[in-house]
Amino acid sequence: MKKKTIAVDMDGVLADIEASLIECYNKECGTAISRESIQGLSEEDAFHGRTILRGILNSENFFRTLPVMPDAVESLRQLQENFEIFIVSAATEFPMSLHEKIGWLGEHFPFISWENIILCGSKRIINTDYMIDDHSKNLDYCIGKPIMFTAFHNINQTHHLRVNNWKEVLETLEKTL
Amino acid sequence: MKKKTIAVDMDGVLADIEASLIECYNKECGTAISRESIQGLSEEDAFHGRTILRGILNSENFFRTLPVMPDAVESLRQLQENFEIFIVSAATEFPMSLHEKIGWLGEHFPFISWENIILCGSKRIINTDYMIDDHSKNLDYCIGKPIMFTAFHNINQTHHLRVNNWKEVLETLEKTL
Repeated sequence: MKKKTIAVDMDGVLADIEASLIECYNKECGTAISRESIQGLSEEDAFHGRTILRGILNSENFFRTLPVMPDAVESLRQLQENFEIFIVSAATEFPMSLHEKIGWLGEHFPFISWENIILCGSKRIINTDYMIDDHSKNLDYCIGKPIMFTAFHNINQTHHLRVNNWKEVLETLEKTL
Repeated sequence: MKKKTIAVDMDGVLADIEASLIECYNKECGTAISRESIQGLSEEDAFHGRTILRGILNSENFFRTLPVMPDAVESLRQLQENFEIFIVSAATEFPMSLHEKIGWLGEHFPFISWENIILCGSKRIINTDYMIDDHSKNLDYCIGKPIMFTAFHNINQTHHLRVNNWKEVLETLEKTL
């Protein structure tokens, strides 16, 4: 039987971009933002100054050195037994990130083939059975069943099935088998 | 009304990869391959030596300097009035090509937004109304209506609607409006 497919986002789902963003932003701006202090804020309200934010996201090695989200590696490996996994990352806005993301995936998720990696802009034409993402802008228009991965900026959004961590992703998806 | 969507391949469709490949291969191997001499051959039979071929495809600036296919720019601009265009290129196998492809599109097709660019591996999960591509491996499994763009390696394949150039793409798609 054909395996069901899952589109898995990178930033905020596989990669802990929040941790690195807070660190770089505080260094750049002399602020003392913490994970706790930005809960429930939009990305724009959490990190003022679009130019500063874009500067960080465009800086060399930013995406290449992001920490891996807890339990993400083992969970994807386990899911791969029963699902076909596609990594689907909005990346074409930041051309510098493209080869860094491939390098990052190669280091941490070497069991994901290049054929199953998609670096895109809009995710509206991605057709998988499930989509795991932290952004409403992707989940609201996705073709498959949306699964919202908790991030500081989405905790007040209640219109999608929510998972708080990779253990919950596994529980949720294995129930569907 | 929502515009119909088209996935447009890059190499062999927007970019004349054949021309550059022949030139680089002849230089590398001392051969005298021409467009005419490889008609109807598979890519493997036309360009012997997978290592040499991969070396060319991995070399700096190869993808960045490909010539644009005749009439591609004006045709895409015209199609954009009635369709939503997505550029969908199998690129993750060659990480070097990723930012070069973005740069190339920015130079020649600046009217295509980063949101409509998809650099991928397999195109099986791309859901557009039409897919224009030169490879059966992409067209045979695509979700939308496949349109085969003529290339040396596909001239004997007859199972898809064929277009020989960008003028024919326009004619074919504008008929559907």
